[in-house]
Amino acid sequence: MDLTVLFKISYGLYIISSFKDDKYNGQIANTVFQVTSEPPRVAVCINKNNLTHEFIESSKIFTVSILSKETPMTLIGQFGFKSGRDIDKYQGVNYYIGQSKAPIVKDFTIGFIELKVINEMDAGSHTIFLGEVIDSGKFNDDEPLTYAYYHEVKKGKSPKNAPTYIKENG
Amino acid sequence: MDLTVLFKISYGLYIISSFKDDKYNGQIANTVFQVTSEPPRVAVCINKNNLTHEFIESSKIFTVSILSKETPMTLIGQFGFKSGRDIDKYQGVNYYIGQSKAPIVKDFTIGFIELKVINEMDAGSHTIFLGEVIDSGKFNDDEPLTYAYYHEVKKGKSPKNAPTYIKENG
Repeated sequence: MDLTVLFKISYGLYIISSFKDDKYNGQIANTVFQVTSEPPRVAVCINKNNLTHEFIESSKIFTVSILSKETPMTLIGQFGFKSGRDIDKYQGVNYYIGQSKAPIVKDFTIGFIELKVINEMDAGSHTIFLGEVIDSGKFNDDEPLTYAYYHEVKKGKSPKNAPTYIKENG
Repeated sequence: MDLTVLFKISYGLYIISSFKDDKYNGQIANTVFQVTSEPPRVAVCINKNNLTHEFIESSKIFTVSILSKETPMTLIGQFGFKSGRDIDKYQGVNYYIGQSKAPIVKDFTIGFIELKVINEMDAGSHTIFLGEVIDSGKFNDDEPLTYAYYHEVKKGKSPKNAPTYIKENG
């Protein structure tokens, strides 16, 4: 078994946001995918230990902010390698609140999708949330950031709560 | 609501194969994604009308053959735009049978993942199958075919059973 072949699966990179009571949170995710076209439904896979998971379970809402190829590592660092339990993820970030009442990131994003959770599947360490599109929009026609570009060109790594995390030796 | 933003989600392209009794079938899919790393689990989204869906429901097995950037449109045409109810998908294709007893495509592929279905979620027109990795391997280090490259460079379209299908006017 050679699990390095799993790195040959292609993904984009996204900020997934949600809310609980009057608090917002967001995190980086790569596993966003359209599931059906009529009606439009999109799924995302989130680690159960993440605060965003708790917020999605509470509000049954998540938004997807699609990152552009120009996204700096600082933005990925803020949303991907820190916990909303320790910092306010939206500090210094340009965002607004969508129809879903969850935040949508405006910095280095191409567009957004707002979703209401209609089903979920327990996948072990992660949950797959299935969402129905409430609203969606495009800010520009920039090229999306792919996971391959992030790893190969930007030399980015995966945090330990990512579906694609691999332990490094030494 | 601007649903064209859904085209900014990044995917790869894969051949998903399965079996039922002594018959094999396979189809093109873009929605393959790793869900957890420990244990390694991978999910795929398949249209309920497709023969591959019937075969996965029967055998609880599917394989993912990861297509390379060099994949010709003829191979995509054979697996993506024809039904296994009408033709033998593997006619003229170089493949072998893996540990899972399902076929693995050798032509224009980078590697494979064999999976046993451990859970599934009804998503309307499609089902999301969650699989645990039985075996996996890499044939080479070619670049994976992405959905964006298929659309923009190869000028490929989506068949009507794809999660990302959009009706064209006129």
